[in-house]
Amino acid sequence: MADPATLKTDARRHHDPQIRGFASDNYAGVHPEVLAALSLANGGHQVAYGEDDYTGHLQRVMHSHFGPTAEAFPVFNGTGANVVALQALTDRWGAVICAESAHINVDEGGAPERVGGLKLLTVPTPDGKLTPELIDRQAYGWDDEHRAMPQAVSITQNTELGTVYTPAEIRAICEHAHERGMKVHLDGARIANAAASLDVPMRTFTNTAGVDVLSFGGTKNGALFGEAVVVLNPDSVRAMKHLRKLSMQLASKMRFVSVQLEALLAGDLWLRNARHSNAMAQRLAEGVRAVDGVEILHPVQANAVFARLPHAVSERLQKRFRFYFWDEVAGDVRWMCAYDTREEDVDAFVLAIAEEMAA
Amino acid sequence: MADPATLKTDARRHHDPQIRGFASDNYAGVHPEVLAALSLANGGHQVAYGEDDYTGHLQRVMHSHFGPTAEAFPVFNGTGANVVALQALTDRWGAVICAESAHINVDEGGAPERVGGLKLLTVPTPDGKLTPELIDRQAYGWDDEHRAMPQAVSITQNTELGTVYTPAEIRAICEHAHERGMKVHLDGARIANAAASLDVPMRTFTNTAGVDVLSFGGTKNGALFGEAVVVLNPDSVRAMKHLRKLSMQLASKMRFVSVQLEALLAGDLWLRNARHSNAMAQRLAEGVRAVDGVEILHPVQANAVFARLPHAVSERLQKRFRFYFWDEVAGDVRWMCAYDTREEDVDAFVLAIAEEMAA
Amino acid sequence: MADPATLKTDARRHHDPQIRGFASDNYAGVHPEVLAALSLANGGHQVAYGEDDYTGHLQRVMHSHFGPTAEAFPVFNGTGANVVALQALTDRWGAVICAESAHINVDEGGAPERVGGLKLLTVPTPDGKLTPELIDRQAYGWDDEHRAMPQAVSITQNTELGTVYTPAEIRAICEHAHERGMKVHLDGARIANAAASLDVPMRTFTNTAGVDVLSFGGTKNGALFGEAVVVLNPDSVRAMKHLRKLSMQLASKMRFVSVQLEALLAGDLWLRNARHSNAMAQRLAEGVRAVDGVEILHPVQANAVFARLPHAVSERLQKRFRFYFWDEVAGDVRWMCAYDTREEDVDAFVLAIAEEMAA
Amino acid sequence: MADPATLKTDARRHHDPQIRGFASDNYAGVHPEVLAALSLANGGHQVAYGEDDYTGHLQRVMHSHFGPTAEAFPVFNGTGANVVALQALTDRWGAVICAESAHINVDEGGAPERVGGLKLLTVPTPDGKLTPELIDRQAYGWDDEHRAMPQAVSITQNTELGTVYTPAEIRAICEHAHERGMKVHLDGARIANAAASLDVPMRTFTNTAGVDVLSFGGTKNGALFGEAVVVLNPDSVRAMKHLRKLSMQLASKMRFVSVQLEALLAGDLWLRNARHSNAMAQRLAEGVRAVDGVEILHPVQANAVFARLPHAVSERLQKRFRFYFWDEVAGDVRWMCAYDTREEDVDAFVLAIAEEMAA
Repeated sequence: MADPATLKTDARRHHDPQIRGFASDNYAGVHPEVLAALSLANGGHQVAYGEDDYTGHLQRVMHSHFGPTAEAFPVFNGTGANVVALQALTDRWGAVICAESAHINVDEGGAPERVGGLKLLTVPTPDGKLTPELIDRQAYGWDDEHRAMPQAVSITQNTELGTVYTPAEIRAICEHAHERGMKVHLDGARIANAAASLDVPMRTFTNTAGVDVLSFGGTKNGALFGEAVVVLNPDSVRAMKHLRKLSMQLASKMRFVSVQLEALLAGDLWLRNARHSNAMAQRLAEGVRAVDGVEILHPVQANAVFARLPHAVSERLQKRFRFYFWDEVAGDVRWMCAYDTREEDVDAFVLAIAEEMAA
Repeated sequence: MADPATLKTDARRHHDPQIRGFASDNYAGVHPEVLAALSLANGGHQVAYGEDDYTGHLQRVMHSHFGPTAEAFPVFNGTGANVVALQALTDRWGAVICAESAHINVDEGGAPERVGGLKLLTVPTPDGKLTPELIDRQAYGWDDEHRAMPQAVSITQNTELGTVYTPAEIRAICEHAHERGMKVHLDGARIANAAASLDVPMRTFTNTAGVDVLSFGGTKNGALFGEAVVVLNPDSVRAMKHLRKLSMQLASKMRFVSVQLEALLAGDLWLRNARHSNAMAQRLAEGVRAVDGVEILHPVQANAVFARLPHAVSERLQKRFRFYFWDEVAGDVRWMCAYDTREEDVDAFVLAIAEEMAA
Repeated sequence: MADPATLKTDARRHHDPQIRGFASDNYAGVHPEVLAALSLANGGHQVAYGEDDYTGHLQRVMHSHFGPTAEAFPVFNGTGANVVALQALTDRWGAVICAESAHINVDEGGAPERVGGLKLLTVPTPDGKLTPELIDRQAYGWDDEHRAMPQAVSITQNTELGTVYTPAEIRAICEHAHERGMKVHLDGARIANAAASLDVPMRTFTNTAGVDVLSFGGTKNGALFGEAVVVLNPDSVRAMKHLRKLSMQLASKMRFVSVQLEALLAGDLWLRNARHSNAMAQRLAEGVRAVDGVEILHPVQANAVFARLPHAVSERLQKRFRFYFWDEVAGDVRWMCAYDTREEDVDAFVLAIAEEMAA
Repeated sequence: MADPATLKTDARRHHDPQIRGFASDNYAGVHPEVLAALSLANGGHQVAYGEDDYTGHLQRVMHSHFGPTAEAFPVFNGTGANVVALQALTDRWGAVICAESAHINVDEGGAPERVGGLKLLTVPTPDGKLTPELIDRQAYGWDDEHRAMPQAVSITQNTELGTVYTPAEIRAICEHAHERGMKVHLDGARIANAAASLDVPMRTFTNTAGVDVLSFGGTKNGALFGEAVVVLNPDSVRAMKHLRKLSMQLASKMRFVSVQLEALLAGDLWLRNARHSNAMAQRLAEGVRAVDGVEILHPVQANAVFARLPHAVSERLQKRFRFYFWDEVAGDVRWMCAYDTREEDVDAFVLAIAEEMAA
């Protein structure tokens, strides 16, 4: 058996910090200001499980963004935030209407169904965005016990396809849902990118538009880890603490989640990071538009670029830069920019795309 | 609405890092070596969700402790580790035998039942420790569908009452369980303290003793957050990645969980931290034994001291130092020492106990 | 492959209708008046899933027993009734306090945990009966998310040990529970036997005593199958139809469940059946008390007799009459009388017990 | 409070047995031969929970249809049969591929998700029938933990749209699924109608075609209630008894479920009933085809007729005969024939359709 001592010396540098790709905004590390905040929160004892001073202060920070009735419940990850939020907005017999392309439907390993017991009532959309009309394809039969009862609508801002709802579009959805007795959840894994794209405060398309509960995403915005369920409409939920705990999303040393969110949100770091990754996606889209044979698939409104190009080209390109196929049969790919994507990374990638298209 | 900018200046010092209490080993912060490791792992892009270099290296570190077949699945917290592990060891129809005092039974908000659908078959114990005889009170009726089928035994090392199983005791439990077709899970939220107490390698009372799956606890040992399900017997489980994901315990930027565990385990930090907190508990117990009227309740074998003293005394004492009642009616309290508890903290606490007893 | 036609001729007589045992009141068949009711409800079309005329009429029958606000939701079996009822009385984060010996804890294959996600907070009892004091061993910590929240108390009348709560005892439990914000469920798998034993209307120890929801048991009382969740306090529940459906307890041809309950409850069949099986248990207990060496274990207040006798005697006896061990180590057995147990069956059994004790 | 005695006299005739509609084959009552079988199985004691002689004999009857390895597990209803079967074919991390129109997706109140924790991966189909190509839209990503793992394909025979798979079509699906490591479930709520339509033994399109587990439907075929999970491939499942129990589908007096299935299947009653309801649907379709302005929507291959006609006409018609809209916006309706639908019922209905179309 190896001696642990020998493991230690090489245990400090496993990767090249110069390498960046376009696969996911989760591939990035932690923003230095967030890392610094962790150090500042360290030392001594703080009450565990959320009664610490940092989590207390986080509430005030959240109020500055979402108004005085907002309450944040820090959690570990996005799946956790979404499943806690959706359980909070539904009863045991409830169902959730969402886009077929929603992360909760396609990328959470069945956690909404398994952990929440939730039926997702999905609707195909052209661009990842629900509308009142699309919602109506599933919004019926509340008194019919043969259907799980539609009790919540879940939208993603920005969407999984890189598109952004306008505040008016979200308001229309919320009014439509509320008129039918349904609550509205917003999956804000990339909410900062949406705010930066729209150039409005986050509350403009959440509280003010009628959203009841929000999953606030810190990880893709530069945190080590850490999201929060933000309750905007206190009347829409109960027993949030219990739901978070039974969903295994309660951090013992919560100060270290809260201080990260504080580091992002107390100043403008959240916005700087989002504006930067959005700008990198714009730069990438512009660069690619100049390359013959590559089609940009959706409006580039946040930090994602979806493109269609020959499958063989993508495969060659993947040997040089990491990214994922979105629809392998159609040849669609997704390129994500992160808060730490550099102009030179984008330019090198555009060049590589051009080279491989020409090869 | 408050200006976020004004929130920033005071957002950096919310607590006094000199304050330490005896409420929980979760009240402590992060060990500086762990914090430093986070910095070293930062920068550039790493594949998300566990295919990063740090998680790869963590496997080698784990092999040095648990042998070459061990495989670690980093998760967020202890509840998550336990519920993932127990789901892995049972079928949909399975039940888990555990002590009535087990954390999975009394402190996890019903997550085993709600998330795992698991029936816990509990047994009262004098000291938090199961034995083959105690297991037999629930180990029967495998063919009787009116009972959830006993498929796993879960023990905690060290136990929730601060007691430590000997390797022989665990071996006897594992043999007993295996003979009856049951698997064994060890909740190692404080496994380092147990190893330090026994002064043996961790494998001596896990792999070697027959444990199938382990919840390895990093948080109480000095991490920011982070635990791992460590599969010791690969034949005992399937689809661990899927179970972790659907249980909402999959970290996107996993390198930052893995590097913490590496920081603890690649050298001897895990052991130094554990030995220190154990020693502080011994110092506390010794100090308290000299105080008339305070009864130490269980053998002090790890970093916990359980004591019985007059209720009014405890209440006065709680105004000076944080700690919890364990059984308020009986007047029992629990005092926990952490990796960062100092001798002067212990001495000041002992003095306070003596003062309040005399008051 | 066998010709189906040849299977038909012998498909009509598989058992000897003269044979009766003491294993379970579920071993009995259907009371002839219930069977006749099925025929009368047959023919033509009736709306499925509970909007039929029989289910409508059943409500009026239930009102005659439980008052005008009672509403019955017919279901298939007792496990279904209990799990639907308990889900109705709790939120996703709720727990249920019950006796350790409760059927929901020991005989439902983990369905409360698996289907309902419910944590059962159990209390040992000497005689299967909870009391306010026993409830208090688990009734605490409502604001503590580390505990599943105690939201309901479940009692069984008569209990699994053949004992019967007095109306005053149930009232005390209900008042105690309600004062603490908890609801009360009564598992009435043998409620008719309890009413016969107490010689009071069923409402005396249900509605009037404060019970919120009742599982009404038809099967052990002479039905083919069929129970009902009876909501006594309409304010205590919501969406019962949805809960019944998602719990897979919604009968399509519900008229045939409802008409059985009607057959039992519209007249006095329920009471005649219960009085008879109770009387048979008294006759059995009296007979056995005359046999040296057999100890009756609990007060015989309904249709069950629990006894302790030498293990070898029981084993010989089981070759002559069917019954079960209750605690094989202690030598405890359970003898159940059914609505169709005859005096000569009891007398023959008592004789056999005497013979085997003397052998 | 009403005197129960007065409830009794009118408790015997609540409905007009001459009335028949076209809303559902669940609106029908019990076939007289099934009712007679219940009487023959009555009297005396039989072991509960499936160890009775009738359930034993049922196995032999099932063997005559499905071969010597088939094993039947009687359950209460179709939702129960399906959810037990699908749980048996999947692990905790499993998903099920099915048609968007599948009963398990649209008509079971979310029970597969809530009780089974199952993710349904749905595919739109033109006629309710899956094909290997349609399955492939969801059959991928087995190693990707972000997706619930596709482990089973569920098809309905005949489908919810009244269409019937040929044996070759089912064989192709089974081969396709098995090659990809997936099991196949067949929801046979109307399997008898499919066999009658194809004029082949049921095994031809189940065992022989490769189906692993079958939900056998008795209720729509003339039973009072009662279905069975029939395991055709014993290697595909484990612990069926436990799954049935924890899914709350275990009947105590099981002889009365089993004897109904025996009454249908030991002779040719199942086939007579199915042929008759199919013939009535053909008669109805033929009659309607002669009415101008009514469009038949799908091939009429079993006992269902789907039609499109003016909404206002349907509404007038619904005042004379019960039936349901299938797609209210499109004006689509579903007309079901039952085993007890008479030629004069069909003719009267056709006449009414013609009258209302002409009105």
